[in-house]
Formats: sequence, structure tokens, C-alpha cells
Amino acid sequence: MSSLSAECPLCQPSAGAPLLQTPLWRVVRVQEPGFPAFYRLIWQAHVAEFSELTAAERAGSMEAVAAIERVLIARLQPDKINLASFGNMVPHLHWHVMARFAWDSHYPQPLWGPAQRPADPAALARIERELPALDMAVREALLGLA
Amino acid sequence: MSSLSAECPLCQPSAGAPLLQTPLWRVVRVQEPGFPAFYRLIWQAHVAEFSELTAAERAGSMEAVAAIERVLIARLQPDKINLASFGNMVPHLHWHVMARFAWDSHYPQPLWGPAQRPADPAALARIERELPALDMAVREALLGLA
Repeated sequence: MSSLSAECPLCQPSAGAPLLQTPLWRVVRVQEPGFPAFYRLIWQAHVAEFSELTAAERAGSMEAVAAIERVLIARLQPDKINLASFGNMVPHLHWHVMARFAWDSHYPQPLWGPAQRPADPAALARIERELPALDMAVREALLGLA
Repeated sequence: MSSLSAECPLCQPSAGAPLLQTPLWRVVRVQEPGFPAFYRLIWQAHVAEFSELTAAERAGSMEAVAAIERVLIARLQPDKINLASFGNMVPHLHWHVMARFAWDSHYPQPLWGPAQRPADPAALARIERELPALDMAVREALLGLA
């Protein structure tokens, strides 16, 4: 089995410059309008399901997810963190790590649910101004693990 | 800090009979119409975020999540497994572990997204007939970890 797939968008070099990568996983910030504090941990090899990893690989990747989560909590004081691994459209293992706020467009629904309101524009702009520092803090936290 | 909250529905004894529980977590099958192969791992203590656990607690609970996932894959051959931890409505750490099928009502959207079609009734009935055996297999897999 090849570790990369020619058809999978997450296997392509064009899939976004990572904040950090290791031989096993990479982390990118996701460009999702209205949800700026949103990172994705992508498994490097073309694996569909979490249970296909070894226990050590699962533990290592979830420590990276938790490290991203801790940075989001410490720097942004979100109302909640949302974690998800679906892959229905792109069956290549990846974890969504999102800071959620009572003022965002979908709260308390997941990003994938129905919108509840327009996001608060001032609050959104405040988070967007934080992104360069947030990226650096996420990178630093991950470097401590990698 | 108390480990249980009087206000939290997931802290109540009425929150559903678990298939298995340990001092740290319990697993229930979720009653969600149209999504029969859906389990939930609930952290016993009233903790909001994954990153509040210790690394060992994270690894142990994710091994339980992976064990449930492996049973769903082996017995049901789903098109994909979906994993998620949101807690926006009930901020008490819990993991959704769902088998997803191309014939289900929302595929490839998450359960929380817009419905795509009525679920295939014959396929749904076939999964529902499997539930007692599935519960036993999930319980057995978790017993191997607990």
C-alpha cells in the first residue's frame, strides 16, 4: 500500500503550508470564513480511520490536538473547543480543532449545523488580529512535542 | 472542584445505562433516529475539555474510542467512521463514535449537517437487527481495555 494517494486532496503538496510538520502529521490553519481560530491536524500517510494507527500514533497525534486546544483556550478564552474527525468527503485522517464562541455564527451548533445568527463583526475582527501571534504560539506548543 | 455537577445532564444517573463503565469513563449507545450504530464515550467526572485530562487519561479514552471504531468497522463495514467531541450544549467531555453509510440520511454531511435524502429503510433495518450483537461486541472490546 502506497502511503500517498494521487487522487486525495490531502495528499497533494498544494494542500496548504503547514505551521509545523513531523514525519507522521502536519498542522495547518484552516481558511474558513467566520471561523478564524480553526486548525487541522492531518496525518501524513493516506490512512482513512483513526483505528488504523498504532496506539502510540494515536496518543502522539492526540497530544498534538490537545496542545493546539490548550493554546486556543489560553489565548482566546473560547466558550468551547470543538474536535472532530469525519473524512466523509476526503477519507484521509484529519482532526478539526476549533475555538467556538457564543457570538459566532453557529454556536451552540457545530460549524456543520445550521447558522444561528451573523457572527459579531467586532469580536471576529479581534480574533483575526490575534492570528499571527496565535499561529506562532501553536507552532511553539507543537515544537515542544515534535 | 467537585467531580460531578448537579446541573449537568451527563452527570445524572438518568443519563442512560452504560454498556460498560470504568472509574474514568462510560460508554452508552445513543438513541438517535436514523443513526443506530452510534456510541458515546462519556468522561465520568464533570470536565469540559479534552486538554484538561492527563496525557494517560487522553490515551486511555482514545484507545476506548478506537476499540469501538474497530468493532463498528469489522461488523458493519461502514463507509466511514465519524468521531466528534463538541459539548457546546452540554460542556461535559464526551466523544461521539458513529458508523456512517452512503445510504444514511446525511452522508457525506455530518449528522449535524443538512439531510441529503431519506435513509434507505432496508439498510437501516439490517443495522438495527445487528444492534444486540453489536452492543455485546463493543462491550467485549472495551472489557479488553478496562
